[in-house]
Amino acid sequence: MKLEKNDKLVIIGDSITDSSRARPVGEGLFDAIGKGYVGNVEALLTATYPELGIRVVNMGTSGHRVRDLKERWQTDVIELKPDWLSIMIGANDVWRQYDSPTMTEEHVYIEEYETTLEELIVQTKSGLKGLILMTPFFIEPNKSDLMRATTDKYGEVVKRLAKKHGALLVDTQAAFDKVLTHLYSATLSWDRVHPNQAGNAVLARAFLQQIGYDFTKGLE
Amino acid sequence: MKLEKNDKLVIIGDSITDSSRARPVGEGLFDAIGKGYVGNVEALLTATYPELGIRVVNMGTSGHRVRDLKERWQTDVIELKPDWLSIMIGANDVWRQYDSPTMTEEHVYIEEYETTLEELIVQTKSGLKGLILMTPFFIEPNKSDLMRATTDKYGEVVKRLAKKHGALLVDTQAAFDKVLTHLYSATLSWDRVHPNQAGNAVLARAFLQQIGYDFTKGLE
Amino acid sequence: MKLEKNDKLVIIGDSITDSSRARPVGEGLFDAIGKGYVGNVEALLTATYPELGIRVVNMGTSGHRVRDLKERWQTDVIELKPDWLSIMIGANDVWRQYDSPTMTEEHVYIEEYETTLEELIVQTKSGLKGLILMTPFFIEPNKSDLMRATTDKYGEVVKRLAKKHGALLVDTQAAFDKVLTHLYSATLSWDRVHPNQAGNAVLARAFLQQIGYDFTKGLE
Amino acid sequence: MKLEKNDKLVIIGDSITDSSRARPVGEGLFDAIGKGYVGNVEALLTATYPELGIRVVNMGTSGHRVRDLKERWQTDVIELKPDWLSIMIGANDVWRQYDSPTMTEEHVYIEEYETTLEELIVQTKSGLKGLILMTPFFIEPNKSDLMRATTDKYGEVVKRLAKKHGALLVDTQAAFDKVLTHLYSATLSWDRVHPNQAGNAVLARAFLQQIGYDFTKGLE
Amino acid sequence: MKLEKNDKLVIIGDSITDSSRARPVGEGLFDAIGKGYVGNVEALLTATYPELGIRVVNMGTSGHRVRDLKERWQTDVIELKPDWLSIMIGANDVWRQYDSPTMTEEHVYIEEYETTLEELIVQTKSGLKGLILMTPFFIEPNKSDLMRATTDKYGEVVKRLAKKHGALLVDTQAAFDKVLTHLYSATLSWDRVHPNQAGNAVLARAFLQQIGYDFTKGLE
Amino acid sequence: MKLEKNDKLVIIGDSITDSSRARPVGEGLFDAIGKGYVGNVEALLTATYPELGIRVVNMGTSGHRVRDLKERWQTDVIELKPDWLSIMIGANDVWRQYDSPTMTEEHVYIEEYETTLEELIVQTKSGLKGLILMTPFFIEPNKSDLMRATTDKYGEVVKRLAKKHGALLVDTQAAFDKVLTHLYSATLSWDRVHPNQAGNAVLARAFLQQIGYDFTKGLE
Amino acid sequence: MKLEKNDKLVIIGDSITDSSRARPVGEGLFDAIGKGYVGNVEALLTATYPELGIRVVNMGTSGHRVRDLKERWQTDVIELKPDWLSIMIGANDVWRQYDSPTMTEEHVYIEEYETTLEELIVQTKSGLKGLILMTPFFIEPNKSDLMRATTDKYGEVVKRLAKKHGALLVDTQAAFDKVLTHLYSATLSWDRVHPNQAGNAVLARAFLQQIGYDFTKGLE
Amino acid sequence: MKLEKNDKLVIIGDSITDSSRARPVGEGLFDAIGKGYVGNVEALLTATYPELGIRVVNMGTSGHRVRDLKERWQTDVIELKPDWLSIMIGANDVWRQYDSPTMTEEHVYIEEYETTLEELIVQTKSGLKGLILMTPFFIEPNKSDLMRATTDKYGEVVKRLAKKHGALLVDTQAAFDKVLTHLYSATLSWDRVHPNQAGNAVLARAFLQQIGYDFTKGLE
Repeated sequence: MKLEKNDKLVIIGDSITDSSRARPVGEGLFDAIGKGYVGNVEALLTATYPELGIRVVNMGTSGHRVRDLKERWQTDVIELKPDWLSIMIGANDVWRQYDSPTMTEEHVYIEEYETTLEELIVQTKSGLKGLILMTPFFIEPNKSDLMRATTDKYGEVVKRLAKKHGALLVDTQAAFDKVLTHLYSATLSWDRVHPNQAGNAVLARAFLQQIGYDFTKGLE
Repeated sequence: MKLEKNDKLVIIGDSITDSSRARPVGEGLFDAIGKGYVGNVEALLTATYPELGIRVVNMGTSGHRVRDLKERWQTDVIELKPDWLSIMIGANDVWRQYDSPTMTEEHVYIEEYETTLEELIVQTKSGLKGLILMTPFFIEPNKSDLMRATTDKYGEVVKRLAKKHGALLVDTQAAFDKVLTHLYSATLSWDRVHPNQAGNAVLARAFLQQIGYDFTKGLE
Repeated sequence: MKLEKNDKLVIIGDSITDSSRARPVGEGLFDAIGKGYVGNVEALLTATYPELGIRVVNMGTSGHRVRDLKERWQTDVIELKPDWLSIMIGANDVWRQYDSPTMTEEHVYIEEYETTLEELIVQTKSGLKGLILMTPFFIEPNKSDLMRATTDKYGEVVKRLAKKHGALLVDTQAAFDKVLTHLYSATLSWDRVHPNQAGNAVLARAFLQQIGYDFTKGLE
Repeated sequence: MKLEKNDKLVIIGDSITDSSRARPVGEGLFDAIGKGYVGNVEALLTATYPELGIRVVNMGTSGHRVRDLKERWQTDVIELKPDWLSIMIGANDVWRQYDSPTMTEEHVYIEEYETTLEELIVQTKSGLKGLILMTPFFIEPNKSDLMRATTDKYGEVVKRLAKKHGALLVDTQAAFDKVLTHLYSATLSWDRVHPNQAGNAVLARAFLQQIGYDFTKGLE
Repeated sequence: MKLEKNDKLVIIGDSITDSSRARPVGEGLFDAIGKGYVGNVEALLTATYPELGIRVVNMGTSGHRVRDLKERWQTDVIELKPDWLSIMIGANDVWRQYDSPTMTEEHVYIEEYETTLEELIVQTKSGLKGLILMTPFFIEPNKSDLMRATTDKYGEVVKRLAKKHGALLVDTQAAFDKVLTHLYSATLSWDRVHPNQAGNAVLARAFLQQIGYDFTKGLE
Repeated sequence: MKLEKNDKLVIIGDSITDSSRARPVGEGLFDAIGKGYVGNVEALLTATYPELGIRVVNMGTSGHRVRDLKERWQTDVIELKPDWLSIMIGANDVWRQYDSPTMTEEHVYIEEYETTLEELIVQTKSGLKGLILMTPFFIEPNKSDLMRATTDKYGEVVKRLAKKHGALLVDTQAAFDKVLTHLYSATLSWDRVHPNQAGNAVLARAFLQQIGYDFTKGLE
Repeated sequence: MKLEKNDKLVIIGDSITDSSRARPVGEGLFDAIGKGYVGNVEALLTATYPELGIRVVNMGTSGHRVRDLKERWQTDVIELKPDWLSIMIGANDVWRQYDSPTMTEEHVYIEEYETTLEELIVQTKSGLKGLILMTPFFIEPNKSDLMRATTDKYGEVVKRLAKKHGALLVDTQAAFDKVLTHLYSATLSWDRVHPNQAGNAVLARAFLQQIGYDFTKGLE
Repeated sequence: MKLEKNDKLVIIGDSITDSSRARPVGEGLFDAIGKGYVGNVEALLTATYPELGIRVVNMGTSGHRVRDLKERWQTDVIELKPDWLSIMIGANDVWRQYDSPTMTEEHVYIEEYETTLEELIVQTKSGLKGLILMTPFFIEPNKSDLMRATTDKYGEVVKRLAKKHGALLVDTQAAFDKVLTHLYSATLSWDRVHPNQAGNAVLARAFLQQIGYDFTKGLE
């Protein structure tokens, strides 16, 4: 288990991360953490490592692209002083290119995506015990699908940056692809972007595996 | 993993099981499975064993006691033809004795509890591949607490019946007790009965452990 | 224009047809006709052929499969005494196989689909001036996609039955495919099943073309 | 077809245009375009000319008169940089004179109407590929009706300005009058001002005809 | 004043009468009488003749035609044992012919209107101290308007029946026509059928005049 | 009839006047005038004198005392430029003394009441064609009742000021007292302060009588 | 203290008793007992005599008169097997005579009141340990007020029956009268019938005094 | 009775005090005082001592800790100029340590608690006729329970400060403990913090006892 006693883990991203978290800060009583994969991660950490007192904070915001993260990086990451930081962004950067093709000023193309994401990493990583980068994903097994293909390219950026900056990498697309060899996308997500409970379990497992989580700890 | 391809697992219980499941049958699209430990179990099974096509059905009903399960056993268990059946009941059987002490006709005392629960087991077990009995629990570490003490006695009944009838036993109270050595009950539940996300993770882990679930399957 | 003065056209189907129509009968004031392609068809017919007094009745019901149409055929088609009847069914017959793979009793496989649909046609066609069969569709251009492939097979059934029974055929999948060569599916539908306004315009145009509608009539 | 690849068409007006569009800008996902004639126009353009990527933006605002358009012309037209602009205004300029006769400061009389409308045209037209002027209308066939008569006068202003400034003219009143020879006004509108779906189809057809739309394009 | 101490006046009709009255019987506390002309009549009678204790009961039902009154005549008129009865019906009998021209089975043509209305009168009048017949109306001054013209014909039926059966006649159309020489219809009604407060005042005045009401009674 | 063509009548007061009027100004479409006595007055004026085009504006505000009127006199009276002004205030000035006896800073005692009311009159009357002062009232016939007795004293102030400043006086208490000789207060008001429809008719009649209204005008 | 360990006290009445109690039986968790004087009584009994386990059941129903109690006496009193029974009825029996004077069939006059109330007492008292009769009340100090005078007469009936049948008498009117010598009725009730919290405290004190309650028990 | 005629008693605290009081100041009509123990205290004072005109003001705010009271002390206590002041604070100061153990910046530890509370007392007491300090409480009889043990320590602080500053002390924990010898905590509170009606009665009795309240005053 890579996280240590009393570590604070901030998880930032878009609606997949958000999942109805509380405002302004997604932590505390009454499901303030949201009902998505972040909630799953926090619940399993608490249930398995109650002695560690890991503090998980959900800072996802629906609809956000990397451009939007940059806007709120100071208040929503820096000022929260995380020990660990996890970032998953890119779905909306890509999606707007396909669901709103005429609204080009809303698109975040891959150059801006890479530059901005790296800028945020560089700005933050020195203060962290650990950085986790999660690839964006599209719950569609057909790699020729236009949106899948573009998402894969953005995912490559994330992999490259993880390697370059020594971050833990959560390859969410690979995790979904494994399930998609057995199940049609509709069992995991209505729109191939927002996971249902099973889809969130896919994300949570992939995330927890990278931070050295042991599900069986304390189970006889 | 004890469940096999295409097995149908029906999980029955009270509000802890219910967790806003769909009516009349708690399965299918749009969180019909509910948002509690049953949803966690189903999500992790689907994410980890997509090739098995396990079918999970949530038949919990808020407020129910074993007496109420008996009333709906035919429609809510028998007619659903489960391969596996999980039962967790007793919280309301006990609770009414403590929150409504004057309303004695609403109490289900331990003799009725045992007799009725065994009656349901006997009536059903021959048609099952596997039976899972979950003890009731009270998220309170003080064994001298009156409600905890009574719950423990009901839990003893469940353990006895599990042994007698060869059922898998999920000792939910033991699972909670382990966490309660590190955390105060309020981190798992507002009222010591209804678990929050972390509390549901405690239940899901204990349940999955008993059915031979392997969290790391397919994770590199 | 194939429809004649005062003809009554009943359009039956699933949620794509339904689009929040009124109950029990989808016609009359205040958008009782629904806000989907049926509403578009009725609006354009009224605007273009006000002198004909075509009566359009929407009998779509969300979630329905051909098995469900059969249940309500007497009240929802026969007793309404249509001059023209249009049927588009199949999306849910196919979809449940992919979004709820374990709930097999909810699936309508292709044999039942064909038999039932033909039964309904045979039972009704003698009383009609005209029968219109619309293929089911899936707004996904990849013909190897599992759900698209299955939908195409159901579409073949519809084409075969249209030919055999002399019905007008509306090839909705072909109509969508033409648009999908230029636009990603997300511009026409959130979930590739329920069309947005542009998707409904695709359906309405394909439908109107088959019944000999002339958009320019009366426009200088 | 007069619009070209990637042209941006801004449509401004009152509640007839608005039809529950999104704020602050009426374009994008989830019916942001509104559910009235603008939605119909956009849907038919997308369905018929998917290769053109026409961008339609709805800037109608309920209750507005030409005086109100002037207030928001900078933000709601100029800053959106339209290639094409369509204006339909006047219903409320006239209506307030008849439904609120004592509130004279709310009335916009014909001189102010003409002056203001021309001012907006002059201010904008040089930057446009095309300007479309739609007359106001009243869905009442009786030309002696006071409100119809006044609306006709305002319509004359629009026609005059269209001619003077080389704009395309959509004579909405003429379009409605044709339908009203066959149908009573109540079939198109509850209050003779706000069109139902059929009334919106009348507007959409008249509009599309003027911009060279071909309904049959791509239909076999 | 024609009504006497403790007389019970039942007023039946359609939505114009109904005006959100209570169910099943429109009388009693908390505006059970409705907020339309019936409420005005009752309020002015109570304020002016408190010593008479006139009992007013509103039995209007939205959407009803004379055909619908017949269905509920036993429970809604006979069993209430009125001393005085007022009937205003016909708006929907006529309107459906104009707003839903294709739904012919919903139309009540003039023969059925006259026959049914007379049947109801004959069945009831012997038990009454007084019968009041109110003509239907359409708040449109143009007598060539199709719906106005038809309404006038139905009004003629009412006048004929009032004369034949010795009923008091309230010529509501004449009352509105007088106001319409000065004001446009929109000041009295949004849709020319449902009166606003001013329109209800027109009806209440016309009604009260016929029953011999004296507004100035008791005012110095 | 004392009001003349196109006169503007502003009516200010408390909740009895307010009756859910629109904000910021209580006039215009859709019952903006409120549903109380002001609505009755406006409706009867419009129905009876449509040729005069009297403009009625409701500026009542629930809970207000004369102290509160003073606060908003500039915006809510002066800037509206009334030809006629009607004031009815005092219910809350008195009521707070009886329903909240300990909250003395909320009470407006009679000296402040008289001084402030006169101040408002003096400040306004020169610009008016006519001023109408309505006494406050309490719908309780027992003159020894404490709240009635106090209200009567405030009413005396209004009468004195009306005489001194040449205003029309509407003695609302006298109007209610006449009805209360025949009916118990509960038939006119639930709480003896807020009139129901019959109570509002009492107010409207008293008001209209003073301005020379003729109910029978134009009735044959 | 007259009630003994485990005694069951059923309290029946009208809206004053009801105070939003649960249905069908007003006892149990989450304020099922209602928020009026019954809730106060139950709360003070539990707080003061926790060792007695007194069971209080609220069977009040808004709007009910003694005639309505009779209708539900079997299910709502007899079948609940009370040890103690408290009845307070009459407010609506009287009120309808004053707020709905024309609806005479809704009035319950004093003969019916006395006969019916006695019938209920006779039918029940043999099975009771104790019967409590509470007079109806009207929170109005003026004994000449019509409704107060009538209420007093109904109160006399209750006193007579209490004496005759050996019931405990709670003279609620006397209790209110004492407070009304110092406070105006509006401090206890908005409409002189439904008590606010202070009014309910008046009732609870009067009730508790009669059953021998000792507020200071256990307080040092 | 220690409070005197027209004394103003301000009661400040957290959600236990708040109980849905009105904002910004919790006093006046329509349960502005809240529905908790403060409402009970005010109701019993008014019912028992109507001649004193005691003014009770509820300034509780949900979620508040002593740190939050300090923030609003000027506006919510000083400016209200109380004669008597009652403070009950500490539940959230303690609770956050147990329900949100990782959010340490939200915890108010005992040193800050004592310092701040004393600071508020010192700042205020000279202007008061009387100060009442209520201990915080936890409705749990097990003194080894962690949250109970901590609450007891905070309670000791309150007792010490009461003694030091000559305040009346309400030992709420002792009051609850007495009841808990007979009843399980669930009969008084769902979560052991927020009292139900019976729990509020425990608080109200303890409070009233300390200020010399006599329940039997005026009861024969």
